[in-house]
Amino acid sequence: MTDVPPDIQALIDLMARLPGLGPRSARRAVLQLVKRRSALMAPLARAMAEVAASARECSICGNIGTSDRCAICQSPKRATGEICVVEDVADLWAMERGGFFRGRYHVLGGTLSALDAIGPDSLRIPGLIARLEGEGVREVILALNVTVDGQTTAHYIAEAVADAAPGVAVTSLAQGVPVGGELDYLDDGTIGAALRARHPL
Amino acid sequence: MTDVPPDIQALIDLMARLPGLGPRSARRAVLQLVKRRSALMAPLARAMAEVAASARECSICGNIGTSDRCAICQSPKRATGEICVVEDVADLWAMERGGFFRGRYHVLGGTLSALDAIGPDSLRIPGLIARLEGEGVREVILALNVTVDGQTTAHYIAEAVADAAPGVAVTSLAQGVPVGGELDYLDDGTIGAALRARHPL
Repeated sequence: MTDVPPDIQALIDLMARLPGLGPRSARRAVLQLVKRRSALMAPLARAMAEVAASARECSICGNIGTSDRCAICQSPKRATGEICVVEDVADLWAMERGGFFRGRYHVLGGTLSALDAIGPDSLRIPGLIARLEGEGVREVILALNVTVDGQTTAHYIAEAVADAAPGVAVTSLAQGVPVGGELDYLDDGTIGAALRARHPL
Repeated sequence: MTDVPPDIQALIDLMARLPGLGPRSARRAVLQLVKRRSALMAPLARAMAEVAASARECSICGNIGTSDRCAICQSPKRATGEICVVEDVADLWAMERGGFFRGRYHVLGGTLSALDAIGPDSLRIPGLIARLEGEGVREVILALNVTVDGQTTAHYIAEAVADAAPGVAVTSLAQGVPVGGELDYLDDGTIGAALRARHPL
């Protein structure tokens, strides 16, 4: 028999389903929440209920916002004719934190995967093709992860864009030595990619 | 400039204050929540609001429950004359999961610590002393962590109980080789404690 009250146990079970939290760390988190009921738990419950009610995916790019069209798709300043294709909203946030890209995004929601039976129609690839003409896109920048599935998806999108809109350039993020990276700690694949993409100084 | 909507950013900031989650894993958790709004996020927000409203500390032992007296303190079956003293509610839950202890608990809420200026009155030590007579306690079992602060607290409580109620036995959990433990992987302190506490077979 365990003494955890049923509603607290239910909360622990829900928390344990979050990525990065297992049953033990969910218990620790819930105990911390119970100890700080008014300072942390009540505001967190309110914030969560608000976001659950208001958050939705942008019908154009798949970004998360609070209306049918996200802030980036609404902003005329971001209509630069460039669309950056990312796998996930987390990648979009990472690009925005950098602050270097001024165009719009397209969130695929995953990568093509034969093993998991994820085809082009499970992602937002048809939506991307549909945007090319309507938004006067000049360049599609593929910012997909450098994994087998990510690169397979990149090649598929490059061909699909070339078929549908031959005038649109398709580019990809450069591969090479990260800023602050030391050669001795880099994997062979990265060193090889950086060597192939060497440039004159 | 970052594109995270303000209410989602506020949720991330609150989540990042949970133990075991930093800013990056809080972002991942919130993205997962937003993706599973109706299946996970809304129930979690409800469960959290309910617990925030209903949870309270037992006025007798400090355990967490939904009324002024926790289920263990209310149950006449648990009036065995034994009180198990633990640092934290997590330790109480760990004892209950074991299912070996049938008495009641007393949750200190921490350990004595000269560095952090935590004295006996910051913990529930006066409350423990007050329970000894009222509940007809025969034995106080100290189940404190085997750390410097935990053992300092154990010695302090042993003396306080001996002063206030000389007839009450004070015991401590045994130290030794854990079940399933291999000597080769144990620290020297544990092997020493197990050797000193050796018993005839």
